Amino acid sequence: DILKSVGRLVEYCKKHGVTVDLCTEDGSRTDVSYLKQVLAAGRDAGCDRFTLADTVGVLTPSSTLQLFREMQNKTPLGVHCHDDHGLATANTLAAVEGGARIVDVTVNGLGERAGNAPLEEVAVGLKTLLKMKTGLRMDKILEVSKLVEEYSNVPVPPNKAVVGENAFTHEAGIHVDGILKKPETYEPIKPELVGAKRRFVLGKHVGFKAVKKLVAEEGLKMTDQQLKEVYAQIKYLGDKGKRVTSVDLESIALSVLGEKKQKALRMEELVAIAGNRFTPTASVKVNLGGKEIVSSGVGTGPVDAAIAALRAATKDVPFELAEYHVDSVSGGTDAVVRILVKLKSREKIVTAEGAGADIVLASVDAMVNGLNTILNHDKK
Amino acid sequence: DILKSVGRLVEYCKKHGVTVDLCTEDGSRTDVSYLKQVLAAGRDAGCDRFTLADTVGVLTPSSTLQLFREMQNKTPLGVHCHDDHGLATANTLAAVEGGARIVDVTVNGLGERAGNAPLEEVAVGLKTLLKMKTGLRMDKILEVSKLVEEYSNVPVPPNKAVVGENAFTHEAGIHVDGILKKPETYEPIKPELVGAKRRFVLGKHVGFKAVKKLVAEEGLKMTDQQLKEVYAQIKYLGDKGKRVTSVDLESIALSVLGEKKQKALRMEELVAIAGNRFTPTASVKVNLGGKEIVSSGVGTGPVDAAIAALRAATKDVPFELAEYHVDSVSGGTDAVVRILVKLKSREKIVTAEGAGADIVLASVDAMVNGLNTILNHDKK
Repeated sequence: DILKSVGRLVEYCKKHGVTVDLCTEDGSRTDVSYLKQVLAAGRDAGCDRFTLADTVGVLTPSSTLQLFREMQNKTPLGVHCHDDHGLATANTLAAVEGGARIVDVTVNGLGERAGNAPLEEVAVGLKTLLKMKTGLRMDKILEVSKLVEEYSNVPVPPNKAVVGENAFTHEAGIHVDGILKKPETYEPIKPELVGAKRRFVLGKHVGFKAVKKLVAEEGLKMTDQQLKEVYAQIKYLGDKGKRVTSVDLESIALSVLGEKKQKALRMEELVAIAGNRFTPTASVKVNLGGKEIVSSGVGTGPVDAAIAALRAATKDVPFELAEYHVDSVSGGTDAVVRILVKLKSREKIVTAEGAGADIVLASVDAMVNGLNTILNHDKK
Repeated sequence: DILKSVGRLVEYCKKHGVTVDLCTEDGSRTDVSYLKQVLAAGRDAGCDRFTLADTVGVLTPSSTLQLFREMQNKTPLGVHCHDDHGLATANTLAAVEGGARIVDVTVNGLGERAGNAPLEEVAVGLKTLLKMKTGLRMDKILEVSKLVEEYSNVPVPPNKAVVGENAFTHEAGIHVDGILKKPETYEPIKPELVGAKRRFVLGKHVGFKAVKKLVAEEGLKMTDQQLKEVYAQIKYLGDKGKRVTSVDLESIALSVLGEKKQKALRMEELVAIAGNRFTPTASVKVNLGGKEIVSSGVGTGPVDAAIAALRAATKDVPFELAEYHVDSVSGGTDAVVRILVKLKSREKIVTAEGAGADIVLASVDAMVNGLNTILNHDKK
C-alpha cells in the first residue's frame, strides 16, 4: 500500500545520496491520523524533511497552527501555502508558530491560480511580528520584487503589502503630520527594512503641514497666507480625485507667488507617422525660451519617433528619460491613456504626467511638462 | 479625562438620535485593560457598537482572536483591519471567530498604504471557511470588483485571490485533468459563487487531455497522432514562456491538419498620422478573400484612426470589438507593447494578441489575427 511505497521510495533515494523532502499534495484536506502515518513511514525510512502542501488554500491560521502542532516530530517540517482564500501569508506564519522551519514562498506571490505565499510578506512577518531571523538580505526585497514584476509581466498593484507603490506612501493630512513627528505612528514596517523609501503624495486628504514641507523642499519661500492658498487649491484638485504630482505642486505654488509661470518650453507643431511600410517618423516645432526650433526624429513607433524629435529640439537641456510608463488601458481604442515619465536632470528626478486618448500627444505632453519643471528649476 | 469625554460624547450623540459606533484608532497597539475601560465607558453611555481599528496592520490572527475574546461584552463588536503585513483578511476572519459581528472591508482591498481587508476575500472566507451567512449577493462580487477597478484606476493583479484573472484559471496538465474529473480537486471556491467562470489556458504545464478537449471545442476532428503533434507544439511554445491563446491553438491545429491556413485577411498597407494640429487619420489597403480594399478612417488618436480604417475595410464581416486592452508598459519609449483584443462575432468571443514596439501596428495586428479566426470559422 501507499505507506509501504513511501518507505521504499524514501529508502531508495537516501541510498543514492539524495536529500528527501516528502511533500504531501493536498495534505491539508487529508485525514490527520493518516498524515501522521505517512510522516512516520517517511521518518522511519530516513526522510530529511516533511512538507505539508495546502494545495488549494483551504487552511485557516487556527487550523494550520493546530495541524502543525499535531504533526511535530523529529523530522523538520515545511509548509507550502496557496492563496485561494487570501490567507497564504497568515497560514505560513501560523505554520511557523506551530513548528514549521521551512517555508515555501514565491516573489510577489506568483503561482498557480491565486498564487502562493509571497516571499516579501512572509519575510517581513517573520521578522517584525514573530521576531525571528531568516538570514535573508531584507533590504533587497523591493529590488527583487521589481525585477520579478518586470520579467514575469505580472503587475504588483499599488496596494500590495510591503512591495506595492503605496505601501510606504502617505497622503492623509493627519497621517503625514503623525509621520513627521514619529514615523512609527503610521509605519509598522520601516521602509528601509525592505529597501523602500517613504513617499508623500498630495490628494484629497492633504494636510497643511505636508504642503508646507513640500513647498519648502521645492526651494520656494512663501508666507502662511500664500501656503494656505496653495493648500486650498491642492485640496480642490484632490476632492476631484486627482493626485497632485511635484509638477502640479510647483506650478500651483509659482502661480500663487505671482510669478506667473512663463512656460519655458511650448510645443507649437507635432506630426508623427506610423505604418507598416516605412520607418516611424516625426517632426516638432517648439518654442524654447522664446526661440523657435524645428527638429525631426525616427523611432520604433510613432511615440518613440515623437520623443526623438522632441529630444533633438531640446538637446541643450541636460536630462535623461529615466522611466516611461503607460498605465494599462482597457475599454475601446479611444480610451484615455495615462503616461508617467521620470526625467533625471543633475541628480534631481522630476515626475510628470500626460493623459489623453492619443498616446503620442499624451506622451509628448508628459515630457513637455517634465522639461518645463527642469527648466524652471535651472532658472532659479 | 478621556474616559469621561467618551461617555459625554456618546451620551450627547444618543440624545440627538444618532447611532454611535465607538471606533478606536490604533486600538490594536493600545493596552487591553485600557481598551476595556473605554469600551465600558462607551457601553454605559449607550453606544451601539464598538469598532477596534488595527490602524497600521500589526495584529496577527492569534492576537486578534485573543483580543476579541477578551473584549466581548454586550456591545456588538466591529473590526477594521489594514493590510500592511498582508494579514487583513486573516485578522478580519479571526475577529469574527473571536466574536466580532461587523467587519469593515473595501472592494479590492483599496485604502491607505497597503489598503484594508478586501470585501471579496472576507465574504468568501466567511462563507466557505467559517460557514457563516453574510446576506451579500455573492454572485455579484466579481462584477463589483471590476467596476471598482475601472473607476479607481487601481489594477487587480491576475494572482489576486477570488477576483484576479487567474483565480479560476487552470494551466497545469494534471490540474486540468483533475478539474475535468472532479472540480473540487483544484477549486476550493466554486467560480459561480462569485460570478466568475472557470478558464483553461495552455502553457508549459499543458496536458494532453486539455489539448484534446479544447481542439474538440474548436469543432476540429483530429486523430490521436495529430493531437500529439498539436500538444508537442503547444508544449514547445509554453516552454519558451508563451501562453497559448485560442487563436494560436486553432492555427496550430489547422496547420497540423494540413489545411494550411489561408489567411482570409491580409494587411497590405497602413499609414496613420498623429499630431497636435489636425484630426488623427489613417488609411489601409487590405486583401480580404482575394479582393483588394482601400479604406480610411479618423479617430481620437492614431490607434483609433487605424482601427477605424480597418473596420471600414472589413465592414461586411459581422463583428464587434468587445474589449481592447494594453498591458502597462514600463521602460523606454521603445519598449514592447502587448495588445489583447476580444472580438465578438455571432455570440462567439475570439481573443487575439499583437505585440511590438509600435502600438499602432501591434493593435492592428491583434485585430487582423482575431478577424482571421472569425473568417476561418465562418468558412467551416
